[in-house]
This record gives sequence, structure tokens and C-alpha cells, in this order.
Amino acid sequence: MIQLLHTPEGVRDYYNQECARKQAICDRVRSLFTLYGYQEIQTPVFEYFDIFNAERGSVASRDMYKLFDRDGETLVLRPDFTPAIARCAAKYFPEETLPVRLSYLGNTYVNNRSLRGQLKESTQAGVELVGESSVEANAEVLALVIDVLRQLGLTRFQIEVGDVRYFDGILRGSNISDEVRKELRDCIENKNRFGLEELLEKHRISGEVAEVLTQLPQMFGDPEETLQQARRLAGENERSLRAVDRLEALYHCMDVWGMSSYITFDLGMLGNHNYYTGIIFKGYTYGTGDCIVVGGRYDNLMGQFGKDAPSVGFGINIDTLMQAMTRQKIDLPGRPASILLLYADSRYQEAVMAAAGYRAQSIPVHMVKNEGQDEAHLLDYARENQITRILYFGEDGSREEKAVPGQNDTAARRQRAMGGEQ
Amino acid sequence: MIQLLHTPEGVRDYYNQECARKQAICDRVRSLFTLYGYQEIQTPVFEYFDIFNAERGSVASRDMYKLFDRDGETLVLRPDFTPAIARCAAKYFPEETLPVRLSYLGNTYVNNRSLRGQLKESTQAGVELVGESSVEANAEVLALVIDVLRQLGLTRFQIEVGDVRYFDGILRGSNISDEVRKELRDCIENKNRFGLEELLEKHRISGEVAEVLTQLPQMFGDPEETLQQARRLAGENERSLRAVDRLEALYHCMDVWGMSSYITFDLGMLGNHNYYTGIIFKGYTYGTGDCIVVGGRYDNLMGQFGKDAPSVGFGINIDTLMQAMTRQKIDLPGRPASILLLYADSRYQEAVMAAAGYRAQSIPVHMVKNEGQDEAHLLDYARENQITRILYFGEDGSREEKAVPGQNDTAARRQRAMGGEQ
Repeated sequence: MIQLLHTPEGVRDYYNQECARKQAICDRVRSLFTLYGYQEIQTPVFEYFDIFNAERGSVASRDMYKLFDRDGETLVLRPDFTPAIARCAAKYFPEETLPVRLSYLGNTYVNNRSLRGQLKESTQAGVELVGESSVEANAEVLALVIDVLRQLGLTRFQIEVGDVRYFDGILRGSNISDEVRKELRDCIENKNRFGLEELLEKHRISGEVAEVLTQLPQMFGDPEETLQQARRLAGENERSLRAVDRLEALYHCMDVWGMSSYITFDLGMLGNHNYYTGIIFKGYTYGTGDCIVVGGRYDNLMGQFGKDAPSVGFGINIDTLMQAMTRQKIDLPGRPASILLLYADSRYQEAVMAAAGYRAQSIPVHMVKNEGQDEAHLLDYARENQITRILYFGEDGSREEKAVPGQNDTAARRQRAMGGEQ
Repeated sequence: MIQLLHTPEGVRDYYNQECARKQAICDRVRSLFTLYGYQEIQTPVFEYFDIFNAERGSVASRDMYKLFDRDGETLVLRPDFTPAIARCAAKYFPEETLPVRLSYLGNTYVNNRSLRGQLKESTQAGVELVGESSVEANAEVLALVIDVLRQLGLTRFQIEVGDVRYFDGILRGSNISDEVRKELRDCIENKNRFGLEELLEKHRISGEVAEVLTQLPQMFGDPEETLQQARRLAGENERSLRAVDRLEALYHCMDVWGMSSYITFDLGMLGNHNYYTGIIFKGYTYGTGDCIVVGGRYDNLMGQFGKDAPSVGFGINIDTLMQAMTRQKIDLPGRPASILLLYADSRYQEAVMAAAGYRAQSIPVHMVKNEGQDEAHLLDYARENQITRILYFGEDGSREEKAVPGQNDTAARRQRAMGGEQ
């Protein structure tokens, strides 16, 4: 019997206040996406494996949940939204040359080994801005990330921004194989200096190229200093210099948005997979070791679905974000303050009318028939259900109302925090 | 390449106005669930097979999507919410004797043969009222269904209500095997009179029992007449008479809610699976052959998860409901009316400030850098994106505003229909 209560490893239920807060976060994120002109797309939870394969996806095949069609086709639970949204952009907006703004909110599935207790089902909210290669497009998605985090009540967070073209530029012209490039990228991304030095020695990479690569894992921190250092080390390398120019222009754009204080640069941020072609960024805050946002530019992805268009976007990990918000004690609206309407059998009609009246004023009502329930139990129940008032319609035609001790303050505070909502 | 654009058979994307309308429906349904005191629960998309097996689930094992854990355990994509919610009620509220009100909104997965073009992934919204066996509890969930449908703008719909105890009562005391019972139930549920007569003959069922069973497929229609007929045919059968009494009491409760006009009775409605133990109901409207709501009482389900509590609930099929609403031309809020802000490069700062101002007033803004785009194309783009005004910040410091022809009326109408929203 007890085993029937378990969920599989790595997935979980959300209920009560936690679920209500998650919903409140999702609602705010959604409405901000709409205010920036993004339209929501809902894609199926499973798709053909090819949509997410190594050329397009960010998750290894062995970490995907696979299932089979009646026809024997291999399907996977989406491990990532970006390829699915790219498919939609190509399918529904094939000829559009003006910007296509798409957003999503849903769950992704990664069958990881769960060593760090990571969730296998996690909620992601994100956008893709398709058809715009400008710095202003990069700035818009960063501004949207920052706006979302601020509106959720976060004050202490940082977006680290890199540009993979800086690293690409350094290696361009050298005869380093793709395989070694990948190894170098992994060492730099993971700030593994010893591994990096070993690799350089092993593959006899020396001179200016080696010097810059060795510096890359430390090329982060204060925005202006980082860009100066990057520019100095890039020497005459056109592609790397252009990457620095773009980051500088991005920084100025973020100034225009009044948001540059949230930005730092990290030229050693290269990502774990291939699809980034320009900027790449990650958002961090206190209370979680994992990043809460990942994003960047991938100008070659859409082409694989038949629409040759640049694209930039991000995904927010809602579960990680919630964890951080809880640890930072950021108060979010949970379940709204409600009324418990306890009625004697003979007062059913009045109770129904009264409930309808409160509901019309957007006040939730829990109707309970009075069967002599224990008062202490009723109060506990009220507290668990965010009930602030108990209304009692007695057998004798009486109508009593009492506040639930210790509930009103919290509820009022919560309602103030909610602002215009409920 | 083209095949990369396909979704697997039986699943689909939602985008643009259709997706926005679906979201608007889900938001309204959710807020009504909250107003009736229900708290949302989110369960994982896959669970252990046992949760949904034949004893507890409503979907045959061969029609479930199965996948495997790293440990080789069989998981299934949830084919139905009710058993998952029952699991949660038992897990999180094991000792609660007062009513536990839970709601859900999410997708279910049935790998059907798709002969009728049914979706394999469909969105369900529903509630479970746990711990209340009263007629008033039945009335509350029916009132909630009716309130939801009315608030979504439906006027012509009907909830057909039966009670499986009427049929159970008729067969009680007879020595008809479980297998034959199931065959009889299927014939009656499908209103298959010939099949039913054949069965009665084959198994030599005659007399009063046979007479009532033969009448059951026609025992529906006008509420009062149907109950009279049912009472007459039940004779001295206590259990069947009690079922009629309960339906009559339910009808009176629905009168108190002012909603009895939406109710009809159908004593031949028995459901395709075992778990109903009392009332059972289905909601129908114009514009779709399938029912939009299924619900009922299952007082033995929770016990299987270790919480011995009665329960009544329903699920609304959001996709079928949307189809019906479209055919009934019920206007629902889609994407809100927005502004296209077209700016010359030199006016970036002013454009960003202006966009922030509109967004603060809850007006969505699509920013587009002016690169001499074709005017006709801009207008098409505006129409597709529910843009009602184009604002142009020119190189020369000018600021022009123009309405998008043919857009304002629709947008204004839509905004009125939305009432206080956005």
C-alpha cells in the first residue's frame, strides 16, 4: 500500500502554498512575456527524437526519456524547449522577415543520474526572438530576464554574459581539430586550469593562442576591465575583437534600459553544447548553486528546420528560481485569504446564497456542513487553508462570524504583497 | 527537412490566438476553482504504472504510454488525473476528516487508435472533493461545473446525471456473474438495445429484473418524469429506490443553486469503468460530439491509497470545450491589443523609455528597429500580432502614430469582452 504513495525518483508533487506560489510566479512571468510582445506557443510533451538529436539539442540521447509510437517510431519527452520552438517558428512563420517573438512555459524531462538531487521534471519559462541579429535584440531578451527577476522581487542577482565568437576567433586559423576544440572548450567552461594546461602541452599549442586560452578561465568580473583585458589579448584577431565590440555595444544598450548594473562579462563562458553562435548568458542569485537562467544566440539552429533566421532567447528554471526565492525569504502571494462557511443543514439555501455573494467579490469560500466538528480541528483546518474568517449559520437562524486567530495578519500582508491581484 | 516540422500523430501545437484563448480559458477555470475553495495540485507527468492499473484507472494498459526508469521500473504518462489526485489526498492529508478540496489542470496521455481523430495529449481541468459523502457535496461539484461553463460564455449545455447504484440495486440478489454484469453494463451504457435483449435471452434473465434492464437505456430525459419512471420500476428494491431519492435530493439542491435547468437524468449512464459508486455525470454542448465534462462519485478509490474517504469530482476536457466554443462562435479574449514601436537607430533611448511607459500601463509593445521595411508588410505583421497602433520614432526626431486599419474594432471588442482582465 505504502508504495502506492510514491512518485518515481527525481519527480515530485507541488501542492498547497508552494503550488499556489509557483502558479503566481508563472502568471507574472507570462504577463511580462506578453508585455514584451511575445506570443505563447504550446508544443506536445513528446516529439520525434530527431528534433532533439545531437545536432540540435542540448541533452545527450542517453539522458532522454524515450517511448514508442504505435508505428514503432522513437519519441522523446522534450528535454529542452529551444528546438521545439525553432520547429514552430519554421513551420508557422516560414516567410516572416520581421521579428517573430515566441514564448513558452512548460516542463522538460532529463533522465539524469540525479547525483545532485536534480529534478528530472522541471518547469521552464522562456522566449525566443527570431529574425533579429542586432545588439538591440540581445539587449531586449536580457532586459526581459532582468525585468522578470525584478518583478518577482529579486534584488540581488547577476547576469554573466560571454560571447563564443571570442574563443572561436582565437582558434580560427590554427589547425586545431574539432575534437581538441571541444576538449579545450570544456576545460575553459569548467574553469579547469590544470586540465587546460595539460591539453595545451599535449597538443603542442603555444604562442599567442596558448596565452589567450590560458587567460580565458579568469577573464570575468568587472565589465569594463574584462572587456579591456579581452581587447588587449585579442591583438589583431578580427573575429575576437568584433565579439568584444558587440559586448561593449550590448553594455551600452543595457545602460539605456537602466539595467547595466546587473550585467557582468565572462569570456570563458562557452556552454556545454554546440548551438550558441554569439552571446551566451547565465543568471545567478543567492540561495542556489545552479543558475536560474540560461540563454544566448544561436543563428544556425532555425536553418536546420528550413528557416534561415538568427535567433536569441533564454529559459528560466522555475524550480531553481523558487528554491532561491524561498531561501531569500521573498514573500509571494500564495493561496488567497478565504472564508469557511459552516452551515446547519436547515440553512443550506442561505449558505449557498452567501457563498455566491462572496465569490462574486472574488473571495474564496469553503462550504462545510456543520456536523458538530471539533472547534480546534476547524481552526487547524482554517489555518491550513488560508481561511481568515469562519462564518457560522446556526440551526436557530443565527449568523456568527469570527476571525481565525493568528491568520489575519499574514493574510492581510500577503494580500498587500499581491497588489491588484486576486 | 520537411519531416522535421511534423509532430507525432495525435498531438499538436497551439499558437497565436488559439493558444492565447486556451490560456484565457485555463485562467478563468483556475480562478473559479480557487473561489470554491479548491487548492491546485501538480503531479508529475509520469508515475508508476500501478497508480493507474485496472483496479484504479479508467484507461486500458495497452492504451498507456509506457517508459522505463533507470532502474527498469515501468512508468506511464498519466492517462487520467483522478488516481494521481487520490494518491496525493492520501499522502498529504491522511488524517483530515473535514473536506479536502483539490484541483488540477494539466495534460493526460492516451495512446488511442485515433480512428476518430481524438487527441493523444489532451488538457484536463478538474477537481476532487474528498471526505464528503453528502448530496450537498455532489451538488457543489455540479454547481462548479455549471458555473465554469457559464462564466466561459456557454449558454446551451446540459449535464446528464445518473447513479450507478440504481443498476447495482436491480442486479443485487440475482445470481448474475461479474462478467455478465459488465456485458450488461456496456450494452446499457451504449444504449445497445439489441445486444441487451440478446444477453438477457442468452443468460435466461427474465421477470422484473429483465424488465427494468430493458427500460434502462431509455430511462432519460425530463428530470421529474425520469425519476418517476425509475421509482415505479424499482418496485421494492431498497438500493435502487435510495438512488432515486438521492437524485431527487440532488435536484432540489441544484434548485437552491438556481441551476436545476441545466440538469437532466439518465439512469442508463453507467460509465465504462468500475470506479463509480454513486452519481455519475457527463456534460454536453453543441459543436462537438464528445462530452466536455465527465465526473462522478467514487467512494472506494481513496481506500486503495490508504485513506478511507468518499470522493466526488469531475474533469473538463479543455480541447473539446474549445472546439465547441469555436463552433458556437463564443468570443474569448485572445492576445491583447498591442503597440508596434518602430524606431530609427538614433532614437533607441527614447524608444526604450516609451516602451517601458506603455508596459507599465499593461500595454504590450513590440519593438522593431526601422530598416526601411515595407509598409504593407508592417501592416500585415501588425494584424497578425493584434497590434492596433504603430508608433514611429523617426531619424529626424519625429514621432508619428497611426492606427492599424481594420484592427481597432476587433481589439476594442475583445478588450470589452475581457472585462477587468489584462
